[in-house]
Amino acid sequence: MIKKILIANRGEIAVRIIRACAELGITSVAVYTDADRHGLHVKKADEAYYIGPDSQSGYLSVHRMVNLARASGCDAIHPGYGFLSENAAFARQCEARGIAFIGPSAAVIERMGDKLAARAAMIAAGVPVVPGSEGNLTSIEEALSLADGIGYPVMLKATTGGGGRGIRRCDSPDDLRRHYDRVLSEATKAFGSAEIFMEKAVVDPRHIEVQVLGDTHGQVVHLFERDCSIQRRHQKLLEIAPSPQLDDKQRAYVGELAVRAAQAVDYTNAGTVEFLLDRDGSFYFMEMNTRLQVEHPVTEMITGVDLVQSQINVAAGLPLGYTQADIARNGYAIEFRINAEDPQNDFLPSFGRITRYFAPGGPGVRTDGAIYTGYYIPPHYDSMLAKLIVWAPDWDGLLRRARRTLHDIGVYGVKTTIPYHLQILNMPAFAEGRFDTGFVEAHPELTEYSLKRSSREVAAAIAAALAAHHGL
Amino acid sequence: MIKKILIANRGEIAVRIIRACAELGITSVAVYTDADRHGLHVKKADEAYYIGPDSQSGYLSVHRMVNLARASGCDAIHPGYGFLSENAAFARQCEARGIAFIGPSAAVIERMGDKLAARAAMIAAGVPVVPGSEGNLTSIEEALSLADGIGYPVMLKATTGGGGRGIRRCDSPDDLRRHYDRVLSEATKAFGSAEIFMEKAVVDPRHIEVQVLGDTHGQVVHLFERDCSIQRRHQKLLEIAPSPQLDDKQRAYVGELAVRAAQAVDYTNAGTVEFLLDRDGSFYFMEMNTRLQVEHPVTEMITGVDLVQSQINVAAGLPLGYTQADIARNGYAIEFRINAEDPQNDFLPSFGRITRYFAPGGPGVRTDGAIYTGYYIPPHYDSMLAKLIVWAPDWDGLLRRARRTLHDIGVYGVKTTIPYHLQILNMPAFAEGRFDTGFVEAHPELTEYSLKRSSREVAAAIAAALAAHHGL
Repeated sequence: MIKKILIANRGEIAVRIIRACAELGITSVAVYTDADRHGLHVKKADEAYYIGPDSQSGYLSVHRMVNLARASGCDAIHPGYGFLSENAAFARQCEARGIAFIGPSAAVIERMGDKLAARAAMIAAGVPVVPGSEGNLTSIEEALSLADGIGYPVMLKATTGGGGRGIRRCDSPDDLRRHYDRVLSEATKAFGSAEIFMEKAVVDPRHIEVQVLGDTHGQVVHLFERDCSIQRRHQKLLEIAPSPQLDDKQRAYVGELAVRAAQAVDYTNAGTVEFLLDRDGSFYFMEMNTRLQVEHPVTEMITGVDLVQSQINVAAGLPLGYTQADIARNGYAIEFRINAEDPQNDFLPSFGRITRYFAPGGPGVRTDGAIYTGYYIPPHYDSMLAKLIVWAPDWDGLLRRARRTLHDIGVYGVKTTIPYHLQILNMPAFAEGRFDTGFVEAHPELTEYSLKRSSREVAAAIAAALAAHHGL
Repeated sequence: MIKKILIANRGEIAVRIIRACAELGITSVAVYTDADRHGLHVKKADEAYYIGPDSQSGYLSVHRMVNLARASGCDAIHPGYGFLSENAAFARQCEARGIAFIGPSAAVIERMGDKLAARAAMIAAGVPVVPGSEGNLTSIEEALSLADGIGYPVMLKATTGGGGRGIRRCDSPDDLRRHYDRVLSEATKAFGSAEIFMEKAVVDPRHIEVQVLGDTHGQVVHLFERDCSIQRRHQKLLEIAPSPQLDDKQRAYVGELAVRAAQAVDYTNAGTVEFLLDRDGSFYFMEMNTRLQVEHPVTEMITGVDLVQSQINVAAGLPLGYTQADIARNGYAIEFRINAEDPQNDFLPSFGRITRYFAPGGPGVRTDGAIYTGYYIPPHYDSMLAKLIVWAPDWDGLLRRARRTLHDIGVYGVKTTIPYHLQILNMPAFAEGRFDTGFVEAHPELTEYSLKRSSREVAAAIAAALAAHHGL
């Protein structure tokens, strides 16, 4: 059994892990830099150790973290997300020093971290990947023939390209003929290499990811999917479980795909298999995240499974103790990332002191956060302050409760993403469950809101005036 | 449809109702006295009206409340609990003035408020009540014969008595013979009336109550039971759903009894049927509360049903839209009443300013409260600041999560019941699900705790010292 865990992270995820430890009777050990001296994770952990003045290097030092775990008598390390969480060398060091790494094996982290190796493993396991050329294209004839097989639209991409250059979408053979030489020439000019390849263009892609959980006794289950299509520059803004865009047949299918993917690489512990969902209903494997996700709470809300406790139990060698058939799905959940950012100013970070924080409450509301009234947000880390998670029995109820809760929470002193989330909720397409990863870009009007007094406050002022008038 | 609701209450329950209104798109109207100017319900409602300087009379004035509802354009009133919630005259006034009273009819409130009438209705409906003499006893022979039928132990009670005097428990015919004349004489001396009656003694009673919900179309359902046996001087301290003391057969039986009770009086809206559960497994009707209960959230947590929204929908004439078979039960929930009281000083109220409030978070945690950092608790009202509600898939998980959450929540500036709740959780009998209404009295050692630094704080201090020593 695991008795003491070092949490190699900070902020809300460190607090989340501390809570799981407390429920399991496990001693929690936090770490902190100068910038994090007043962090909630430091206050809430059973023990807390200073890891140096630099805001980053402490959290990123494999050796310091493993040494501290040994020195403080920890028998396990939880890496959270970000920082060292997908660092195979870290997992390997833990294994070498007799400390349980709460995550998959170093070998799996390494394999799934190599995008080409991961793609090859998925192809071998029969999990669909985005169709494309095996290697570089050698002629326009080959390209035309390949595109016929894949189906239009296709993308021509410079193999060594990046930054959006050397890419053309082709909707027909004519397009392909027209663009082939151009992309080849761009590739040569821009990247010094006349190598181009072809990939199916996934149209209006939706980001669907499946939570999986495997134990060390060969059991792998999925815990349904999350819809993370609402993104800003590939950063998720909110996440939903289950996806309102899938029917039960698609849900079962993508769940099975994820389990197959995990089984193919002997996956243990919690992981996430990310898929793109095409307009035609096809799912394509994108990548596997070999760690806990930011958005894991929405899965917990619809299944009742505590994923962090499950991670710890699996790392301790315990069997899951249930099978796929035992996992029930109940209602809908949404997570809003409450970031200290100004959506009206290109989401610029808005650090500073939280002058006042009102936690939301009532039925179906959960907060995972690391803020409190008086907390000074250090500018050295990512801008996520808290996650607001809402549950309701059905999709309509979820939208109504989510709107209420975003009005209910109060974060003062910095700008936040709260009003932007309310704008998203008010978009008819969102409410109808129709959105893809281009949603935020397609709706620049989402930032057109006013932070002056809310209608509620205006109504209250009018009411107060009336009351005074009537002498009530 | 209901468009605007006046909330004739304050504190956490007013906030709870405001949240339900917001989710239904209904305008909420709060009321406040001088003492409540800074109440959270005033901040959160769409409108708020001052109802005078006196801390009580405003909340208790039928006419002022109904007039204010009319003047502010409300089409409904929610009474919450306490204050006017079980005042039949208030419900009648609302009905007369064309305002929907969100609760049962005035006639039902009146009938169930009269304990003798309620008992008669239950006997007629075949719902068991505590067996006893029909009226006063006339002789020892009658008493002996009656006791034979009821079964020992029985209670002899002075009919006009009170305050615990003129009461004797008789465990055998010999006891009864010995005590009969004594109670008769005590009744005469103490209360000037030689009238005594007999009632079955309910041994080690457990307080089991069933949530019912009826619509105006004849549909009545129950939403399982709550165990409210943990009480201090008949005040509930914490509540659990479902009761860990019932098996499924008992659960189904008491649920059916509650539905029968509600149907017998044509009950509409939310109500609670309270039972005593005897050591021998018998349930006896105690009373029916014709309003929302403080402890309604635990039922919401295990069923997913929003009881306040249901109340509003029923008052608007909507059908429930589901039947008994549709109501599923999922996991366990517990509610802790976080009161501003000093358990070590006879639960004396501890009013003052909340210097700091940390809301708890993470999976399975809900707070319904009316406090915030800087809030001054007015001494004019009851001492309940917030309700901490915890859910988990099973009883053991609930105990572990509850313990974690009571450490997670932070209320500073006043004394609270938080450490007392932790003491209860640590009692083996409680953890094993064996407790009756005498639990608190039977365990005076529950108040033997120290508020000096927690073991966690001590551990953190030691860790800090070690870190300094090792130069980590």
